[in-house]
Amino acid sequence: MAAVSHTEATNLTSPSSNNNGSSSSSTFSISPVTLQKLPHLKDYIPQQGLKTQPNPLEHNPFYHPSQGFYISHSDVVLRHIVFDLSESFPSPASSIAYQRAGPRDRIFFDPSQTRAAIVTCGGLCPGLNTVIRELVVALWDLYGVRQIFGVKAGYRGFYSSEPVELNPKLVHSWHNKGGTMLETSRGGFDLQKIVDGIQDHHFNQVYIIGGDGTMRGAVNIFDEIRRRKLNVSITCIPKTVDNDVGIIDRSFGFQTAVEMAQQAISAALVEAESAVNGIGLVKLMGRSTGHIALHATLSSRDVDCCLIPEMEFYLEGKGGLFEFLEQRLKENGHAVLVVAEGAGQDIIPRTDAQKEERDESGNPVFLDVGGWLKSELKKWWARNHQNELLTVKYIDPTYMIRAVPANATDKLYCTLLAHSAIHGVMAGYTGFVSGPINGIYAYIPLEEVAQSKNGVNTNDHKWAWVRSVTNQPDFMKV
Amino acid sequence: MAAVSHTEATNLTSPSSNNNGSSSSSTFSISPVTLQKLPHLKDYIPQQGLKTQPNPLEHNPFYHPSQGFYISHSDVVLRHIVFDLSESFPSPASSIAYQRAGPRDRIFFDPSQTRAAIVTCGGLCPGLNTVIRELVVALWDLYGVRQIFGVKAGYRGFYSSEPVELNPKLVHSWHNKGGTMLETSRGGFDLQKIVDGIQDHHFNQVYIIGGDGTMRGAVNIFDEIRRRKLNVSITCIPKTVDNDVGIIDRSFGFQTAVEMAQQAISAALVEAESAVNGIGLVKLMGRSTGHIALHATLSSRDVDCCLIPEMEFYLEGKGGLFEFLEQRLKENGHAVLVVAEGAGQDIIPRTDAQKEERDESGNPVFLDVGGWLKSELKKWWARNHQNELLTVKYIDPTYMIRAVPANATDKLYCTLLAHSAIHGVMAGYTGFVSGPINGIYAYIPLEEVAQSKNGVNTNDHKWAWVRSVTNQPDFMKV
Amino acid sequence: MAAVSHTEATNLTSPSSNNNGSSSSSTFSISPVTLQKLPHLKDYIPQQGLKTQPNPLEHNPFYHPSQGFYISHSDVVLRHIVFDLSESFPSPASSIAYQRAGPRDRIFFDPSQTRAAIVTCGGLCPGLNTVIRELVVALWDLYGVRQIFGVKAGYRGFYSSEPVELNPKLVHSWHNKGGTMLETSRGGFDLQKIVDGIQDHHFNQVYIIGGDGTMRGAVNIFDEIRRRKLNVSITCIPKTVDNDVGIIDRSFGFQTAVEMAQQAISAALVEAESAVNGIGLVKLMGRSTGHIALHATLSSRDVDCCLIPEMEFYLEGKGGLFEFLEQRLKENGHAVLVVAEGAGQDIIPRTDAQKEERDESGNPVFLDVGGWLKSELKKWWARNHQNELLTVKYIDPTYMIRAVPANATDKLYCTLLAHSAIHGVMAGYTGFVSGPINGIYAYIPLEEVAQSKNGVNTNDHKWAWVRSVTNQPDFMKV
Amino acid sequence: MAAVSHTEATNLTSPSSNNNGSSSSSTFSISPVTLQKLPHLKDYIPQQGLKTQPNPLEHNPFYHPSQGFYISHSDVVLRHIVFDLSESFPSPASSIAYQRAGPRDRIFFDPSQTRAAIVTCGGLCPGLNTVIRELVVALWDLYGVRQIFGVKAGYRGFYSSEPVELNPKLVHSWHNKGGTMLETSRGGFDLQKIVDGIQDHHFNQVYIIGGDGTMRGAVNIFDEIRRRKLNVSITCIPKTVDNDVGIIDRSFGFQTAVEMAQQAISAALVEAESAVNGIGLVKLMGRSTGHIALHATLSSRDVDCCLIPEMEFYLEGKGGLFEFLEQRLKENGHAVLVVAEGAGQDIIPRTDAQKEERDESGNPVFLDVGGWLKSELKKWWARNHQNELLTVKYIDPTYMIRAVPANATDKLYCTLLAHSAIHGVMAGYTGFVSGPINGIYAYIPLEEVAQSKNGVNTNDHKWAWVRSVTNQPDFMKV
Repeated sequence: MAAVSHTEATNLTSPSSNNNGSSSSSTFSISPVTLQKLPHLKDYIPQQGLKTQPNPLEHNPFYHPSQGFYISHSDVVLRHIVFDLSESFPSPASSIAYQRAGPRDRIFFDPSQTRAAIVTCGGLCPGLNTVIRELVVALWDLYGVRQIFGVKAGYRGFYSSEPVELNPKLVHSWHNKGGTMLETSRGGFDLQKIVDGIQDHHFNQVYIIGGDGTMRGAVNIFDEIRRRKLNVSITCIPKTVDNDVGIIDRSFGFQTAVEMAQQAISAALVEAESAVNGIGLVKLMGRSTGHIALHATLSSRDVDCCLIPEMEFYLEGKGGLFEFLEQRLKENGHAVLVVAEGAGQDIIPRTDAQKEERDESGNPVFLDVGGWLKSELKKWWARNHQNELLTVKYIDPTYMIRAVPANATDKLYCTLLAHSAIHGVMAGYTGFVSGPINGIYAYIPLEEVAQSKNGVNTNDHKWAWVRSVTNQPDFMKV
Repeated sequence: MAAVSHTEATNLTSPSSNNNGSSSSSTFSISPVTLQKLPHLKDYIPQQGLKTQPNPLEHNPFYHPSQGFYISHSDVVLRHIVFDLSESFPSPASSIAYQRAGPRDRIFFDPSQTRAAIVTCGGLCPGLNTVIRELVVALWDLYGVRQIFGVKAGYRGFYSSEPVELNPKLVHSWHNKGGTMLETSRGGFDLQKIVDGIQDHHFNQVYIIGGDGTMRGAVNIFDEIRRRKLNVSITCIPKTVDNDVGIIDRSFGFQTAVEMAQQAISAALVEAESAVNGIGLVKLMGRSTGHIALHATLSSRDVDCCLIPEMEFYLEGKGGLFEFLEQRLKENGHAVLVVAEGAGQDIIPRTDAQKEERDESGNPVFLDVGGWLKSELKKWWARNHQNELLTVKYIDPTYMIRAVPANATDKLYCTLLAHSAIHGVMAGYTGFVSGPINGIYAYIPLEEVAQSKNGVNTNDHKWAWVRSVTNQPDFMKV
Repeated sequence: MAAVSHTEATNLTSPSSNNNGSSSSSTFSISPVTLQKLPHLKDYIPQQGLKTQPNPLEHNPFYHPSQGFYISHSDVVLRHIVFDLSESFPSPASSIAYQRAGPRDRIFFDPSQTRAAIVTCGGLCPGLNTVIRELVVALWDLYGVRQIFGVKAGYRGFYSSEPVELNPKLVHSWHNKGGTMLETSRGGFDLQKIVDGIQDHHFNQVYIIGGDGTMRGAVNIFDEIRRRKLNVSITCIPKTVDNDVGIIDRSFGFQTAVEMAQQAISAALVEAESAVNGIGLVKLMGRSTGHIALHATLSSRDVDCCLIPEMEFYLEGKGGLFEFLEQRLKENGHAVLVVAEGAGQDIIPRTDAQKEERDESGNPVFLDVGGWLKSELKKWWARNHQNELLTVKYIDPTYMIRAVPANATDKLYCTLLAHSAIHGVMAGYTGFVSGPINGIYAYIPLEEVAQSKNGVNTNDHKWAWVRSVTNQPDFMKV
Repeated sequence: MAAVSHTEATNLTSPSSNNNGSSSSSTFSISPVTLQKLPHLKDYIPQQGLKTQPNPLEHNPFYHPSQGFYISHSDVVLRHIVFDLSESFPSPASSIAYQRAGPRDRIFFDPSQTRAAIVTCGGLCPGLNTVIRELVVALWDLYGVRQIFGVKAGYRGFYSSEPVELNPKLVHSWHNKGGTMLETSRGGFDLQKIVDGIQDHHFNQVYIIGGDGTMRGAVNIFDEIRRRKLNVSITCIPKTVDNDVGIIDRSFGFQTAVEMAQQAISAALVEAESAVNGIGLVKLMGRSTGHIALHATLSSRDVDCCLIPEMEFYLEGKGGLFEFLEQRLKENGHAVLVVAEGAGQDIIPRTDAQKEERDESGNPVFLDVGGWLKSELKKWWARNHQNELLTVKYIDPTYMIRAVPANATDKLYCTLLAHSAIHGVMAGYTGFVSGPINGIYAYIPLEEVAQSKNGVNTNDHKWAWVRSVTNQPDFMKV
């Protein structure tokens, strides 16, 4: 993707040629960079149906927008920023840019006519209440919106219960609470009823906070809204404690989860160290991706081995987990294992019933890898180490992790997410997601995010390198 | 810097023209991108003086470097990634790239001949011990280095005391301790004695952990090492809890400091809310930059006003602090102020003695802005609000913030910093700093970092926008 | 006080005589035990003015008072429980018993006619909101009282502002907040206005939460209520984070304060250990008593010396603080000092102005012993240790300690305190304090508690023994 | 037991007769008080075999034992301190006193000849390392003992591995770590091998830290030591996080466990509040007693119902758990349950296999009451609430609770326990336990403690009253 511009750049791949010291640097260029198109109300609403007005921040009593305060359509951020200059063909990923998030000088909603709806769907995640609180406070304080509603208990709330009116006083200290004050639930997605509900309540701004399933639903709602040609802007704030959503740098609550996981790992270490041949085993969230497990492992530095869904592993034989643990027990007298809940699903034996069983989404149910590992460890030990003690302590801290309030890092992140979303919606954008790309808040088409997936790529530099930090087996049969 | 490539891109600045939906995106290009030259031992040591060997990771017992594991000289990361496509002239900042950090396939040190020195200088910062611990563990485990030394109590330790031998067992749980187990001190910089000490102890790798003053000293040491043509690689890991070092995304310990500051802000809020006309006042670290104060404020959402060195403010009159506080007290009955220690230095009256007084570096001494504000607030109230109660509670949590161990986010960061530094040094680079640039760990010439400064730019988009989040006065007399 | 009953008991003092093994134990008796009289409404209200009814707990929907559920007037707890059997004369303190706290089978208030007032006075203390919350919830749930009011901002709230109506929904999560949701203030005591206010608002139950000054005021209110023969029951819940109130085992919030103080001590230790000749100095609350400082020291085990108001100390010369610190610095390279704010007030030099200055209560103002010590330490070092480094880091965590919510131990304590108080008031007792005596909740005449004082008795067994734990100098010039 | 002394005291039972105000108090007496005999080395070792010497504290360099510093054999503390003056017959429990703990003026061990052994047995408990650390530090610093050994991994360590030599430097920061640095294990009790081990290693002081099983073993060891007439003093420090040991006020680590349990309850509350008909279910430690569950419930104030082993309960029908939950869900939309692990064991259906299964001690195995309750709740809901959502989140925080370091309250307690034990052992006492009785540290015969049991007595005042605080059903079928 990085079309090397001239001969000097070619030299980059043989650094020794720079040895003369005369040329202190080289140059290259990046081209083409493709700017992603962001959906906007005017894409399908005729000009006369859209009235704009100056951003009310212009008349804020406290501060005075300086020159350069407003972000314009020409402000963009680059997504792919890492290049291998030696590659002969540019990769297609190299050339994407997104609109920067931030206040626009003109807005497409009359605050006095704005009716905003906020809904939370799916499982808990630290920071949910901060996002809600900030949506309410910023709509109220910055844009003067006075009709803000909480839709209760997920998607079904659009048609099955009355929305709750929200205001800054009510939400004042919500950011310090775990969970979601609007309640949440899974399922309940009924497209027509939901869009009917949006129309019936005269909502013209819809803020949806939810995970990948929720986002796919939101894409459908967005399509239906466009089909009905409603003057309704919809945005989605990705909520996945597992950090498995793509394109954006990370999802909110993730850092808090990694922080909280330290407690469980510390407890596992203490249990392991205090026993004879003690093994501490911690199961962490992560059905399809091991980000929490991996980050918690790297943060802790007290974990001997971390197993994630993106990586196959095996127990017996050379290079297997048991061999590795045997060695660590011999060296240190104890070991700590971290396992993501989605790891090892293909090697855990399933009963016939379990083979048939499907979860709400039709996927094979997840088996408890932690319980299975604990049992296999004990069997292995009994087979091979008669008369020697073994202690395995298994900790599942899931709910104690996900139910806490966001930490400072995530609170700030949630705040900026909420503000970004509002600025985008007020500017008339719709069907988008806001989030940081390489540290810069940007707007990304919702459909793109809904289709993305952020796994731990065990083949790229990043993971390969990090793998060396853990100094654990790679379970490659060689 | 973003040379717009063709007409479509021009349209970007008038988004309404994209309304036809036919062209879903536009393109542009970035050129030139200048790759910064990184100092290397071979810059001044003749070829025959440098022996290389394969990276020992190649023979690690646990994992097997996959294809693409090693980072090469052609792997680069972009520094400037935000562009305003409407600007007619590219800014010079647009065109810089740095080497990515990570293991190289060949190394320039024989591990059995390597003698590494680690030193910590200046004030405390969360994560110091994690960096030290990881340097020791990774040198030992990944590269097989067995001669690793801690230089005690800062620069003076190179010549005034015996280094301490370090190994993984000794440093095993250091990452869970605050402060620095190697001790630290200010000053003690004596160039010749230090480089003599490096030679006398036969150190050939020097890891220096310190702030801006320390880095400027390290530049001198690097220059002297080159002058003496020593086969010694030197690297610096920036340590500044204030986050005032430039180029890299942030400095280690900063996130922990922001987290800990929440406690002080919460206490200030409780004190303020529990009193009649209560004002909670928190002074946070930040002599020349307000990053901690600003981030702590944005994370907390319970702060009414945040004062930082980069921003002028005034107390009396229209648009002043007192007017603002008066209004908040009337509305809410209480208010919380956060002030960075460097704020307001130019408006605090100085005695003649204070005008003369200089700190160790020859700068005017800092006056206690917190104490001064507390006193001014009381005087103001006494002048204008007879018979009404006022309570001002002033909290200075500095040492309670900086003495804690790193949180999970910072521990991971410290770990990757240490590993990055080692990989770079082993590869023969010298006079460099490792750190994340837009989230990617990279190597940056030390001199460049030592001269950089990371302030809160009150004129750019980022701060301007964030300023709207706090909804506080901008103290612009209009 | 322990009249030894027969010859065997005398043997107790010569334990060797028990060597025969035949008599496995000895006996003695305690006499007389004096039961303290508790004030009651019927002491001054004629029988016909007092209607009683069965305790509404009798008809609680959830549980059914078992036999022995109600506490009766004959249930008592012993105050003095430690005896020296060798003493020839019993001490007068030996013989006191108090009424046990708890629900009575008949109550003296008709819940439908009850109007309860709750007020908080003086400085903050962890647990204030728990006490308030539990008073509201228990009055409402257990006794069916529906008119409960918060008097705002201390004593002055009885006459200068409207009370706030309280109910379980409103106070639902107050126990998780620091400070007091009713606000507090010092002063504002105007006896006639207060009692007039009680009458004007038709309060017949008054719950006052405050420290020693507040309690002395409450005694006056109680006397005035009796003088006016009002059918108003008044109780006081001692609030003193310093734990300086007598008779009861300890005051609420104290354990939380000791817990929080650990953070400051840890920070001081880290600062001290990370420096060359580092001294960490922590000032803790305690104007007249050193309980927090002493308990925090004993809990931490990382403190070298703890200075409290009850103990004289000196700096220079043999057996002085400097000599001791010199030795510790030589041995360990660092030292940690904890000082109660009231320590050393008589040896800190005062300016003429400071000699005249008086606080609100007419006492000489407290000088900052921490700042003074820091300065004296530096002067001492400069005098005697040229060219050697010294670092003194001074931490004052006061507001960060007292503004936190109560920990679990204190929350339970606050809950039982509030319930005890209500049961006593409903039973018609007045002018009393509830609190634990040797672990048993009891009712104590308010006047007795208001006159009591709980200092660290440096001459008794307890402190003498504990003193050996700290292994610090006793500053006795010998 | 409280023999009422004269007529006035009789009046106590009819408080109205005190109305005249002339007699402000009444008196009574307590008799007999029986002083428990404490085992001592001289009970079975002839006088000539025991040499005493002055307590080395007499010559401590830092402080000078004041008059009254030493505790003597005549210093006692009363165990039963609560009396019902209306009872016609004294209860036999009324009349017991114990020796106070503390330093004696003469000691029965020559410190230079003393070899002390410390061992930890059974499960983890917060504070273990504090006790170990303080035993080492106090033996060393206060008594000058230099031969202190850690016996590894429980009772089996006496005969199966080499003891570890301990000293203050080594244990310096152990009090800040969870678990036990000496490792622990269950079982391994072989009386003869253990006492042989004690003799072989020439230990003459044995400090055993363990739970009820451990204490019963220690009684046997004590008996065997006496049988062999060894000059070996043995003491036991009760370790039971469940707080199920009798006579002493509470066991160490218990307060920390209650504190940590708050986190789990908070998470359960958040999960419950964030769902539609959400039930948060927390299982806490407590096989035979519900102290942790009960205290955690009372501290939290966010629990709707607490189930403990001492209390029967039922699910279906009037007054049952389901009826109660139905009502709470209707009122509040959510509910939180806390259940002790030993609760409901008799109503959980057992498979035939489970009926046969026995744990290591031969008792029927414990079934997972939490998992069972979760499943029963879901079945009940499915039966009776078609089409309504229900969410049950089950949290088992056991290892995360018991593996933490002690909090400040427990650290102080552990410190005083360790010091008490040492003072007693040095004074020649043996076969005893030290612990607080009504707040006063005392020595209690080991055998007495080993046979004691501390349950939640659901029939006494304390629990009955506390039960009213929780406002939950009492599951009495009426």
